[in-house]
Amino acid sequence: MKFRYALRTRYSDTAQDGIIHHPSFVIFLEVARIEFFKSLGCDINDLERQKILCPVVELSVQYLKPLYSLEDILVEVEVDVFSKVRFSLKYQIFREQQCVAKASTTHCFLNSSFKPIAIPEKLLFEFKQGSC
Amino acid sequence: MKFRYALRTRYSDTAQDGIIHHPSFVIFLEVARIEFFKSLGCDINDLERQKILCPVVELSVQYLKPLYSLEDILVEVEVDVFSKVRFSLKYQIFREQQCVAKASTTHCFLNSSFKPIAIPEKLLFEFKQGSC
Amino acid sequence: MKFRYALRTRYSDTAQDGIIHHPSFVIFLEVARIEFFKSLGCDINDLERQKILCPVVELSVQYLKPLYSLEDILVEVEVDVFSKVRFSLKYQIFREQQCVAKASTTHCFLNSSFKPIAIPEKLLFEFKQGSC
Amino acid sequence: MKFRYALRTRYSDTAQDGIIHHPSFVIFLEVARIEFFKSLGCDINDLERQKILCPVVELSVQYLKPLYSLEDILVEVEVDVFSKVRFSLKYQIFREQQCVAKASTTHCFLNSSFKPIAIPEKLLFEFKQGSC
Repeated sequence: MKFRYALRTRYSDTAQDGIIHHPSFVIFLEVARIEFFKSLGCDINDLERQKILCPVVELSVQYLKPLYSLEDILVEVEVDVFSKVRFSLKYQIFREQQCVAKASTTHCFLNSSFKPIAIPEKLLFEFKQGSC
Repeated sequence: MKFRYALRTRYSDTAQDGIIHHPSFVIFLEVARIEFFKSLGCDINDLERQKILCPVVELSVQYLKPLYSLEDILVEVEVDVFSKVRFSLKYQIFREQQCVAKASTTHCFLNSSFKPIAIPEKLLFEFKQGSC
Repeated sequence: MKFRYALRTRYSDTAQDGIIHHPSFVIFLEVARIEFFKSLGCDINDLERQKILCPVVELSVQYLKPLYSLEDILVEVEVDVFSKVRFSLKYQIFREQQCVAKASTTHCFLNSSFKPIAIPEKLLFEFKQGSC
Repeated sequence: MKFRYALRTRYSDTAQDGIIHHPSFVIFLEVARIEFFKSLGCDINDLERQKILCPVVELSVQYLKPLYSLEDILVEVEVDVFSKVRFSLKYQIFREQQCVAKASTTHCFLNSSFKPIAIPEKLLFEFKQGSC
């Protein structure tokens, strides 16, 4: 179960070296992750209105190729592993057929006192479906 | 009553044209404004914990000179005009003696239903003091 | 001649007050402006490869309504006034039928020594067409 | 040889969940790294004027504790491993005595054709000194 999200890099994503600045890739991952979750019926705005947070606890990115401004890219996201309280996603960013970056993020769910809580049922169900 | 705040421009503030990207100036204004207000006893974190917002309702910037990464700049802020419900600040950004940008912002105070409320007493008092 | 560009606000555009942070509107204007220029045959990447810059010299924004994360907005851009060396654009940002912000930017063209140069012929031609 | 750089988190670093947004930590790492290199006599602006790039090829961050706006933090950077063409740095971000994040980045040096080149002599010398 791979989710794909198309983005165009922005002028504002560049830095003085003329290429997309590495922290912008982290934003691209987040944009795609949020849309992925929405596609699974889990809207981050709804979640946060219920005072549930889903922070990034680990992030890693491998930068393979430079990206330039105004390029059309595709961010591929999929669930890597999950338990009842934690899950990891893996990502690939493509420019046409070329993979320009690989990444992974690990997340948990927290209540408003920053205490870990179980992954919402609906999402856990989708993770299990996807992994079949 | 002019408040001055020193900043160093960051690599991440640049864009592919090699200079500081114009939206970063807007961040510099905000950083200085928040420190200015703190110096007047008005901490934005405290304010927002009380569910009071102080949004920007108008912004204008004149970009006079390019700025580069890793430059030390000084942001000067002062109260321009104020009523009981609204106030305007004016700003100058300096690199050494050279003014590189002028700006102004207008703000109001809102409660958690986004209804306008009076400027907090303490701040209004400071504005009046400053204007003498 | 109004150009319209659709965007979705991002989670990363928000700040702790729960709404889209005001500097992000400045990015939205730029994204739409760059696409507008591209639609007129003027690609900012091509321009900068020729060492021509088109900086913002003046910016003003009126913030009318708060925007939230993951909202679909439309940025409308049009040429306001232009001379041989300078031009101004005006913008409106819409959420459905509601105008949430109005803005204007003024620009010039600079060569690699930061000296003002004439607006590129092609663009000036388009500006004249549009204004008929 | 640990380099320490003090920063204050900004309002603009937050997102709607009320805490510092995770991509901002990546900026904090960069700010500290650039100052660290400057302290070793290697100024990124000079380097880039010579058309030498020093991109991030790998990034990993462990987010341990939430950070809030307007907090004073300390970013600690040190060289982890290095060869003649590649090096890794490790980082810890502190709020007072509390470590709020750990991170590492791996870098290489590229010429203007994006071909790998040797680490500049001066920097390699400093790396060797530091590792004694």
